[in-house]
Amino acid sequence: MSDSRTIQYTYDLLSRQSVTPEDCGCQEFISDTLAPSGFVSEQMNFEDVKNVWIRKGTQSPVFVFAGHTDVVPVGDASKWDSDPFVPTLRDGMIYARGAADMKGSIACFMDAAEQFVKDFPDHKGSIAMLITSDEEADAINGTVKVVEVLEKRNEKMDYCLVGEPSSSDVVGDTIKNGRRGSMIGRYTFHGVQGHVAYPQLADNPVHKILPFLQEMVDTVWDEGNEFFPATSFQISNINSGTGATNVIPGECHMMSSFRFCTESSPESLQKRVQDMLDKYGINAEVNWEISGLPFLTGRGKFVDAAMSAVKEVMGFESELSTAGGTSDGRFIAPTGTQVMELGPVNATIHKVNECVKKDDLEKLTEIYYQILKNMLVD
Amino acid sequence: MSDSRTIQYTYDLLSRQSVTPEDCGCQEFISDTLAPSGFVSEQMNFEDVKNVWIRKGTQSPVFVFAGHTDVVPVGDASKWDSDPFVPTLRDGMIYARGAADMKGSIACFMDAAEQFVKDFPDHKGSIAMLITSDEEADAINGTVKVVEVLEKRNEKMDYCLVGEPSSSDVVGDTIKNGRRGSMIGRYTFHGVQGHVAYPQLADNPVHKILPFLQEMVDTVWDEGNEFFPATSFQISNINSGTGATNVIPGECHMMSSFRFCTESSPESLQKRVQDMLDKYGINAEVNWEISGLPFLTGRGKFVDAAMSAVKEVMGFESELSTAGGTSDGRFIAPTGTQVMELGPVNATIHKVNECVKKDDLEKLTEIYYQILKNMLVD
Repeated sequence: MSDSRTIQYTYDLLSRQSVTPEDCGCQEFISDTLAPSGFVSEQMNFEDVKNVWIRKGTQSPVFVFAGHTDVVPVGDASKWDSDPFVPTLRDGMIYARGAADMKGSIACFMDAAEQFVKDFPDHKGSIAMLITSDEEADAINGTVKVVEVLEKRNEKMDYCLVGEPSSSDVVGDTIKNGRRGSMIGRYTFHGVQGHVAYPQLADNPVHKILPFLQEMVDTVWDEGNEFFPATSFQISNINSGTGATNVIPGECHMMSSFRFCTESSPESLQKRVQDMLDKYGINAEVNWEISGLPFLTGRGKFVDAAMSAVKEVMGFESELSTAGGTSDGRFIAPTGTQVMELGPVNATIHKVNECVKKDDLEKLTEIYYQILKNMLVD
Repeated sequence: MSDSRTIQYTYDLLSRQSVTPEDCGCQEFISDTLAPSGFVSEQMNFEDVKNVWIRKGTQSPVFVFAGHTDVVPVGDASKWDSDPFVPTLRDGMIYARGAADMKGSIACFMDAAEQFVKDFPDHKGSIAMLITSDEEADAINGTVKVVEVLEKRNEKMDYCLVGEPSSSDVVGDTIKNGRRGSMIGRYTFHGVQGHVAYPQLADNPVHKILPFLQEMVDTVWDEGNEFFPATSFQISNINSGTGATNVIPGECHMMSSFRFCTESSPESLQKRVQDMLDKYGINAEVNWEISGLPFLTGRGKFVDAAMSAVKEVMGFESELSTAGGTSDGRFIAPTGTQVMELGPVNATIHKVNECVKKDDLEKLTEIYYQILKNMLVD
């Protein structure tokens, strides 16, 4: 039995060494493959990043598949059991960098879309793909820039299916229908440097911030809600001191991370932190960086289309989740698009011997096909 | 009017660029100068450090002047108003690296000792000088090694006058009759590294140690006593985090400093810290370094001799103090020697434009002379 189109496409994409921001012809391959089915491609490159917007149809609603062709570095290649850029089948698993994150799901959607437009040439709305080569690194010249262009020309995305590896044990077991927001705080706490033998002449910032930090760590920022876990706070870095044993430091630097749900906002969190700093009389500067706002796609036509597709193909109910890290969905959701993530099992992503189950990819193609059908066929 | 011997000796010593561990012939100059007065010199060099033990007489009690010929680096020489190794008189002040710390007081003692043995050839006991070129840096091959040699051959030091700059505003206003002990703690706190989006899978050591640190900072280790201020604790360095904003750190490193009085001991402090670590269930390793035990020379013949010398020369009462940093006295006191520090004003030590008042040096010579007289003449 020869390989399905899904697997052929997967192998082709995985053979390309497209470490961020390289694309290595992946996007051209996708465009060329879909062109005969009526998909029109538009390159939107910014600096060293390649992006492509591929669309079939002019009608609403616009159904978008979002994904990235870049992969994270392989790390120590000698630790891989096979060449990370030579996709290798062992015991039903396809091994290669990007197999699960996320060239596999791009191949699935290509195959599903081709089949779908062949089976339903008169489907409603439009089908599109938004593909970038800069999701894994800075994400400055990727999806966010394409979204800007589309917004400027009033080209609306109604539904966005992100092919990120959302699943835990078997494909389809988890659908991410939202993500928490992410906000970094960079703190500089000021004290007065001095000699440890004369503490009365100094003001140790590390001593002074302890009650503040304790309250930050102990604070229940919110209780979360039906869709989101509670907002969480973590100190990721703290540095103070000259290295000398007898010097009381004059400054302390800290970085912290909020992962926040829709019960809190960046403004409310910043204000609460500032109030706490004031309460403890701490002289500090804080620079905030909002790297993503929370978004949620509630139950409704889109989520239900995915749930029933999984039920039909896999025979079980998906679990909806908003846990975990960020994805490019954070850039798309703010435009009013309903965003959802559904892709392969994420157990091996960013690791040595990244892999995806061959059968899972075949199933994922069927799931994507069913979603298209549920959304674009009456 | 030509310069006194004190000032001549001061200029000679200050012209030598004896940055630790260099001596640049200072010790040879001291030995050669005192030899005609009956002082016998014995070099005790260890590795790159020069030390000299200079003694006149074989009887008890042995009165020792302890000092160092090394100086700290000049820093940015362009910020000095005159060459730091060309002693320069301006407005009654002598400017040069080492003027106050402590070539000036060496010169004073040389002059005082010469005059004293000339005036009182039949004085009691012995007069000695213990001079090292490694006080400002590691202090490994300096005073501590000379003390070992003297102890091995049962050569006792009864009284030790350290010429460190003890004074605050005018020479003689402060006599240090003791020093607190000093103990460094180097902590490694262990947690579990993880992703900030999944805090439940990690264990942030920075969060975990906060209550421990707060208790360390809030603890009254002791109340001090009649002679010593209370034991103090300072965090001098803390470092945790990979630099990444989204990683919960797996370890936290910290350095702290205890300056402790005779009401606490290294053992009692270490036990109390360990009990606190256990109480908060903190997984930590602590490496302790005792860099000096506290010592105290109570009121009695030696301290009184210095007090009355200052009173006679300066017309005021000295203040006794055990505050401030460490000196080589910490190595001498444990042998049972009574140790006291009396020297110039310390306002400019280790700084740009280090200086000493010329008049203060002349006065200090008189004070040293009077102390010798009070101690060694019936």
